[in-house]
Amino acid sequence: MGIHEQNPGRTELSELGEFGLIDRLTANIEIHNSSTLKGIGDDAAVLDYDNKLILVTQDLLNEGVHFDLAYTPLKHLGYKAAVVNFSDIYAMNGQPRQLIIGISVSNRFSVEALEEFYNGLKIACDKYGVDMVGGDTTSSRTGFFISITVIGEAERDKVVYRNGAKPNDLICVSGDLGGAYMGLLVLEREKKAFLSNPAVQPELEGNDYVLERQLKPEARRDVIRMLHDAGIVPSSMIDISDGLASELLHICQQSGTGCAVYEEKIPIDPATLLLCEEFKIIPSVAALNGGEDYELLFTIPLSDYEKIQGLPGISVIGHITEASEGKNLITNDRKLIPLQAQGWNHMRS
Amino acid sequence: MGIHEQNPGRTELSELGEFGLIDRLTANIEIHNSSTLKGIGDDAAVLDYDNKLILVTQDLLNEGVHFDLAYTPLKHLGYKAAVVNFSDIYAMNGQPRQLIIGISVSNRFSVEALEEFYNGLKIACDKYGVDMVGGDTTSSRTGFFISITVIGEAERDKVVYRNGAKPNDLICVSGDLGGAYMGLLVLEREKKAFLSNPAVQPELEGNDYVLERQLKPEARRDVIRMLHDAGIVPSSMIDISDGLASELLHICQQSGTGCAVYEEKIPIDPATLLLCEEFKIIPSVAALNGGEDYELLFTIPLSDYEKIQGLPGISVIGHITEASEGKNLITNDRKLIPLQAQGWNHMRS
Repeated sequence: MGIHEQNPGRTELSELGEFGLIDRLTANIEIHNSSTLKGIGDDAAVLDYDNKLILVTQDLLNEGVHFDLAYTPLKHLGYKAAVVNFSDIYAMNGQPRQLIIGISVSNRFSVEALEEFYNGLKIACDKYGVDMVGGDTTSSRTGFFISITVIGEAERDKVVYRNGAKPNDLICVSGDLGGAYMGLLVLEREKKAFLSNPAVQPELEGNDYVLERQLKPEARRDVIRMLHDAGIVPSSMIDISDGLASELLHICQQSGTGCAVYEEKIPIDPATLLLCEEFKIIPSVAALNGGEDYELLFTIPLSDYEKIQGLPGISVIGHITEASEGKNLITNDRKLIPLQAQGWNHMRS
Repeated sequence: MGIHEQNPGRTELSELGEFGLIDRLTANIEIHNSSTLKGIGDDAAVLDYDNKLILVTQDLLNEGVHFDLAYTPLKHLGYKAAVVNFSDIYAMNGQPRQLIIGISVSNRFSVEALEEFYNGLKIACDKYGVDMVGGDTTSSRTGFFISITVIGEAERDKVVYRNGAKPNDLICVSGDLGGAYMGLLVLEREKKAFLSNPAVQPELEGNDYVLERQLKPEARRDVIRMLHDAGIVPSSMIDISDGLASELLHICQQSGTGCAVYEEKIPIDPATLLLCEEFKIIPSVAALNGGEDYELLFTIPLSDYEKIQGLPGISVIGHITEASEGKNLITNDRKLIPLQAQGWNHMRS
């Protein structure tokens, strides 16, 4: 999926009508899971989870609020919209199985544009083994609104909540952080340059890593598998959508604990570090408040330390404490700073 | 729930922030079902259906397309948005258990306005025994967008699809039809009168029945119970959201059959008949194409005729035929007219 796609022919939405449009958009849907008894085409989808627990998550994504079509290709948008919801299911230690997509669009969009969006959804579903089982396609007066619901399953004794962290548990994070936020800054800089002089070509070269982190994130199914194979069931888990600080606070608040996290242990990619220097941003701030990395943040009992040590791409960044000790970042120069949930929206202003 | 409510104080959305708003809107949520293990507050809701089948349905409702706030109180809107999704679950011969609500609103709306909407949702959930287990509250640049997902359960051998109708099956419908559409016409007439002269008071008196059909419809849980108690499992079923004609065509198309429906047998309330006269609309046209009645349309084997005969509020309106015989309405003057799916949007123009 390249960022620049050729503009296909234009078919107006009114040429197909609601049922015709749904037929066209859902023509190539394949079913991956035996749990999908009935997908699109009845009053409701029908699923058979055979005594497993059911997980359900929903996200709304609005044009101009959650995405900017000036630099977000529709195929990438579809892919990301699906993947960020899969991420929520993995964060429960579950497996996503079905997706329901609802979109509201104005007639500014062509059938081909919606097909691009659906292609992105479909690529994500095929990659993660998820079935598209329903949806609703309606018109809006302005803008593009997306509602995605993902349903997944979990073993009864394996589901992981946010509220199970205990003092002395180790705090772990997968992958690296801050990249998606730096990707957003690059895209916004180029948009601004383009708006002030449309003849200028975007300078995106060399920033592939952070751009992919922002435009085409992945959900950490591999991490869930690895933990399973290593015999580790986290005591708590959450996916990092709003930034490390905000997610740490969620776990501590729901578990009734504090935490101590070491700035020096927060994993940050070299490409992210370079851009932080260019944009004059402290790298740990990008990681703590940047958001949209969709890595997994989880806690494990200290007794699992040996099991986790050998696992690639997992960083132990601190430990859970009693609530009375507070929720703190220990900086590189050994200062204690209370964690604050700023979120990336706040950072941008 | 009266149509005219006092305007409560105004709190701006920005005063609470996203998490504060969600806390306030979801403060009074009660859990009715043992299947709801985890509701709001984690990456996903967690449900335990103990080996039953899972039903999932989703609807999008957009301001200016699906509802008009000029005559739709927000509490009624919340109630209706929930109920029309419960109706989809009953139409599968299932029971709704959980609801996930997503709303996108501009800052034109106050916190109190959203509380009214949530109150309507909550009243519907309490009445139908459904748990609100999650949601997403985001900002939009303009307008009010609603996404509702309802999850329900069905016994493995009792789920009813649209595709099981067989030739000679009886076609049955619950309640009466056309009322919701006439209610809409009354509301639109009064809106027009108000816009041309704001001093005129709305003439809604005496139209309680059709207004309630439009603004505060109910889902036919009672019919599902009655069929169950009578030992009837329909061969096919659908709820009437787009008008009787459109739903009959869905059942026939998916079952590979035709149908013969008798105009004289279509149940229409006296209040609806009176308004049809006033608006110069043929009553059966309002029933066939009007939509939004949320009654149940179902087929049963001829052998269940005696069982259905004694049931209150169920009308047998025709029978399923071979596909080759077509999908026909037999008019009061014994003419055969092929059924057409016009839908109520078409009728309005």
